[in-house]
Amino acid sequence: MSELNEAPASIQLTSSGQLKHFLTVEGLSRELLTEILDTADSFVDMSAQQVKKVPLLRGKTVVNLFFEASTRTLSTFELAAKRLSADVLNLNISTSSTSKGETLKDTLMTLRAMHSDMFVVRHSSSGAAHFIAQHVTPDVAVINAGDGRHAHPTQAMLDMLTIRQHKGDFANLKIAIVGDILHSRVARSQIHALKILGAGEIRVIAPKTLLPSHIEAMGVKVFQEMSAGLRDVDVVMMLRLQKERMQTALLPSEAEFYKLYGLTNDKLAYAKADAVVMHPGPINRGVEIESAVADGPRSLIMNQVTNGIAVRMAVMSMAMSGQLTDIQKQPELI
Amino acid sequence: MSELNEAPASIQLTSSGQLKHFLTVEGLSRELLTEILDTADSFVDMSAQQVKKVPLLRGKTVVNLFFEASTRTLSTFELAAKRLSADVLNLNISTSSTSKGETLKDTLMTLRAMHSDMFVVRHSSSGAAHFIAQHVTPDVAVINAGDGRHAHPTQAMLDMLTIRQHKGDFANLKIAIVGDILHSRVARSQIHALKILGAGEIRVIAPKTLLPSHIEAMGVKVFQEMSAGLRDVDVVMMLRLQKERMQTALLPSEAEFYKLYGLTNDKLAYAKADAVVMHPGPINRGVEIESAVADGPRSLIMNQVTNGIAVRMAVMSMAMSGQLTDIQKQPELI
Amino acid sequence: MSELNEAPASIQLTSSGQLKHFLTVEGLSRELLTEILDTADSFVDMSAQQVKKVPLLRGKTVVNLFFEASTRTLSTFELAAKRLSADVLNLNISTSSTSKGETLKDTLMTLRAMHSDMFVVRHSSSGAAHFIAQHVTPDVAVINAGDGRHAHPTQAMLDMLTIRQHKGDFANLKIAIVGDILHSRVARSQIHALKILGAGEIRVIAPKTLLPSHIEAMGVKVFQEMSAGLRDVDVVMMLRLQKERMQTALLPSEAEFYKLYGLTNDKLAYAKADAVVMHPGPINRGVEIESAVADGPRSLIMNQVTNGIAVRMAVMSMAMSGQLTDIQKQPELI
Repeated sequence: MSELNEAPASIQLTSSGQLKHFLTVEGLSRELLTEILDTADSFVDMSAQQVKKVPLLRGKTVVNLFFEASTRTLSTFELAAKRLSADVLNLNISTSSTSKGETLKDTLMTLRAMHSDMFVVRHSSSGAAHFIAQHVTPDVAVINAGDGRHAHPTQAMLDMLTIRQHKGDFANLKIAIVGDILHSRVARSQIHALKILGAGEIRVIAPKTLLPSHIEAMGVKVFQEMSAGLRDVDVVMMLRLQKERMQTALLPSEAEFYKLYGLTNDKLAYAKADAVVMHPGPINRGVEIESAVADGPRSLIMNQVTNGIAVRMAVMSMAMSGQLTDIQKQPELI
Repeated sequence: MSELNEAPASIQLTSSGQLKHFLTVEGLSRELLTEILDTADSFVDMSAQQVKKVPLLRGKTVVNLFFEASTRTLSTFELAAKRLSADVLNLNISTSSTSKGETLKDTLMTLRAMHSDMFVVRHSSSGAAHFIAQHVTPDVAVINAGDGRHAHPTQAMLDMLTIRQHKGDFANLKIAIVGDILHSRVARSQIHALKILGAGEIRVIAPKTLLPSHIEAMGVKVFQEMSAGLRDVDVVMMLRLQKERMQTALLPSEAEFYKLYGLTNDKLAYAKADAVVMHPGPINRGVEIESAVADGPRSLIMNQVTNGIAVRMAVMSMAMSGQLTDIQKQPELI
Repeated sequence: MSELNEAPASIQLTSSGQLKHFLTVEGLSRELLTEILDTADSFVDMSAQQVKKVPLLRGKTVVNLFFEASTRTLSTFELAAKRLSADVLNLNISTSSTSKGETLKDTLMTLRAMHSDMFVVRHSSSGAAHFIAQHVTPDVAVINAGDGRHAHPTQAMLDMLTIRQHKGDFANLKIAIVGDILHSRVARSQIHALKILGAGEIRVIAPKTLLPSHIEAMGVKVFQEMSAGLRDVDVVMMLRLQKERMQTALLPSEAEFYKLYGLTNDKLAYAKADAVVMHPGPINRGVEIESAVADGPRSLIMNQVTNGIAVRMAVMSMAMSGQLTDIQKQPELI
C-alpha cells in the first residue's frame, strides 16, 4: 500500500461546503464541527426515547470495512448504522477475498458496484481512508474509523461533545492530553479539533520518548511532568497506552509509566477542583488510570461511550446527505 | 470471576412481580411460568403466519453476549430478537476486547452506555447471568442462555411448553429425565420448572457417577436402571452427554453408556404406550438415543426447536416490558 | 456425504411450473430464464433509487448456509436478502454444530423447525443443494450458491443478464468461454443457460488438460488456441483459475497459462471490434486477464457485480413466491 497519500481535507466537502466524507477534522471549519456537535446532541436526546431508531439511512447499505480488528469501535458504528435504519454488512478484510489474491482496489470497486452507500474504514496504515475515498467518490461516503497513527476523527468529536456538554465554551478551557502522544491517532485528532473549536489552552503531557518531534508546531504546550502539566486544567484527557503499537522499548515498564503518568486522585489534585477526566477506552486500570478516578464522580468515560453512538449517527447522516447532494450534481445524472 | 454469586431470584422481578430479567426458573411462581407458556403459545401461532414479525422490540438493542460458543442457541436468540424487530449485536466475548485487557465489568458498563436494552448471556461459569444482571439493573434486561452447571431456563421452558402442548395438565404426568444429571444445567432447570408447574412425579435416571449428591432433596425419585425408571412414564426427557464438560473418567465408554441408558425402542417399551420423547439437541445418535426413536412418531425433538423460538420471544418481550416499567419508576426519571 | 445424488430439475418447479428452488439452470425453460432476467431488470432499476429496499421478503428468514467460505458471494446474497427486507442468519457450518457431532440432516431439520423460509447453500460437494432441497421441501426454498463442480446458477444468470443488457438477442451472438472449464461450475451453468436462451454459437477455449472429456456433447465448439477461438466472437467470458481446486499438476505454470490463455488486448483483437469482456471475479490480474482489459472500456466486470445483486433478488423473490404457492397446496393445510 505504498500508493497511500493523504489527500487535502477538501475531498471531504461538497462544493457548497457540506460534509460528504469524514476522514479527518484537520482543515474543517468551526461551523462544521459545531454542526456535527449540534446534530449529535439531537441523537443523544433520541437515544433516550423508547424507540431509538430514525429512518435517515433506510434503504442505504453501510459496509464496515475493518482491516484492523476492533470490537468496540465496530460495535458503535454497527449500532449507529442500525439506529439510522441502514442495512449493515460487516467485512473483516484481513480474512476475506484479499486472501484470494484480489487487490484492495478491486475489493473497493466490487463493493461500490454492489451499490454500497457508505464505507466505515478502519486500517493500520495512515491515509487509508483518504485513499479509499479518492477511489469511490462520488458514489460512496467514507467515514474514517481510525487509520494508522493519522486520525480517529469520530473519537475526537465524541470527546468534544462530552467536553461541551459538561464545560460549555471551549475558549475558557485549559485542556491536558496525557500519555502516548507519539503513537496516538486519537491525540492528533483531539488537538486539531480543540484548536478549531478555539480551546483556551491545549497541553500535552508525556515522556520525551512518547512525544512526536516538533509537536509544539501544532500549537500545544508541552509538559513532561504531571504536577506542572495538570495545574489548573479543566479537562484531563488520558490516552490509551497502545502496547500493540510500540515496536521499540520506549518505556521502562508499565509500573514506571503508572508511577509517573498514571492518573491517580493524588495527581488529579493538581487540576481545578471541578476538572473532569476522560479516556477513549478500553482502559488499562493501574496503567494509565487508577480505578478510583476511572469510576469516580469526575470521570466522564461512560458519557464518552454514549456520545460515541450519537456522534457516529451524526457524521453518518450528514455525510450521506452531502454525498447525495453531490451525486445529484453529477452532469451525467442531470 | 471469583466474585460470582447467585443472587436471590427476586432480582428477576419488578416490585409488582413482573419478569424483568430471566435468569432461572427457581423461585418463580406457577402463575408466572404459566404466563410465559401462554405468551409463547401466541408466538407459536404467529410463526405460522406469512409475516412472522412483530414490532414489540422495535428500536431496542439486543446484545448476544456469548462467552461460550453455541451456534444453535445463538441462532435461536438471534432469530427471536429479529422477529421481535429488535436491532441485534452478536459479541463473541472470548475473542473480543477482554483480550485487550478490559475487565468484564468494563465491557458491561460500556455496552450499557451504548444504550443496549437487553443482554442475552451465555457463560461457562455458574452465576454469570446473575452477576451481570446485578451490575446492569435497571437499565438492561438480562436473559440467561446457559450459565455453567447452574441453569438454562429458556431450554426448560421450551420443554414445558412442548409437554403442555402434547400432554396437557402437569399434575397427571410421570416424567423421567435421563442421562448426565450431574453436569446438566438443563436438568436442574427442568426439575425446578416441573416442580413449580406441579408435575405428578419427577424421576431422574442415571449412573451413580452422573448424579449430584443429595439430588433427592430436589424432590425427585432416583433410578439407576432404565427398566424401573421408565416404567409407566408419560414423558422421557433425554439429556445431551456433555462430553466437553466431563473432566474425569465418570463413564466407562460411550458404547457402555448407550447400552445401559441410550434410549432405544426396546427401552421405550417400558414407558406408557403413548409416552413422548424429548431431547434438547444436538443429539448424539447411537450415544444417548437410537435413530429409530429420535426420528420416530413419538419424538417431539423438532417441536422443541420450534417452541424454542416462541419461548425466547416470550421471555424477551416480557422482560423488556417489565424492565421498562421498572425504569419508569426510578425516582430520577419522574 | 456419499448419499449425494443429483435430483431431476423438476424438483425446482411447482406443479404449475413456477420456480420454488433454484438449484441449476439445466432443464429450465427459456420462458422461465427470461422471467428471471426480466425480474432482475426491475431490481436493477430499483437499486438506483434512493431507498433500495422492497418488502417482498418481510418477515421471512433467510439462512446463508455456507459450508465453503466465500466472502464475496455471501455478501451479495446477504445484501440481496436485506434489500428484500428479510431477516438474515449467516451460518458458517464448518465451524458450527457439526463439530459437536450433529449430522448435516439434523442441522437442516433443526433450521427448518426454526421456521426458516429459505436456505442459500454453498458447498464443496456437487449435488449438495439438491440433497438439501430434497430434505426440506416443501417448507424451505433452496438457492444454490455454488456446489462443487456442478453448478453456480445465479452466477450464470447474472452473466446472461449482463449479455442481454449489452448485446440484446442471444440468437445473434458468438460467445467464447475461456479457461479452466474442467473445474468450473460457472462454465457448466453458463453453457446450459446460453443453450436454453438460444445463443448463436458457444465456444470453449482451454488447454486439453482443463477440458472435461466429451465436452462437445454439451453442444459447444472446442478450441485450444485463443487466435482461432476468439475469432469474430461478440462476448468473451473469462473463468477464474481455481488454484484451490487443482489437485494435480494440470498446468505448467501461471506464467505459461497467461501467455497462452490470459486475455490481453492483443488477443482480444481477434474478437469483433465491439466484443465485450466478462469475468466472474475475483480476478487474478496477470494470470487470467491483463489489467488494461479488465479495467478497459470493453470490460463489463463491474456490471456483472451490480447485476449479481439484482439476479439474486429476482430468484429469491420468485422461489419464495413459488414455495408459498406449493405450501398452500399441501393437503393438510386446506
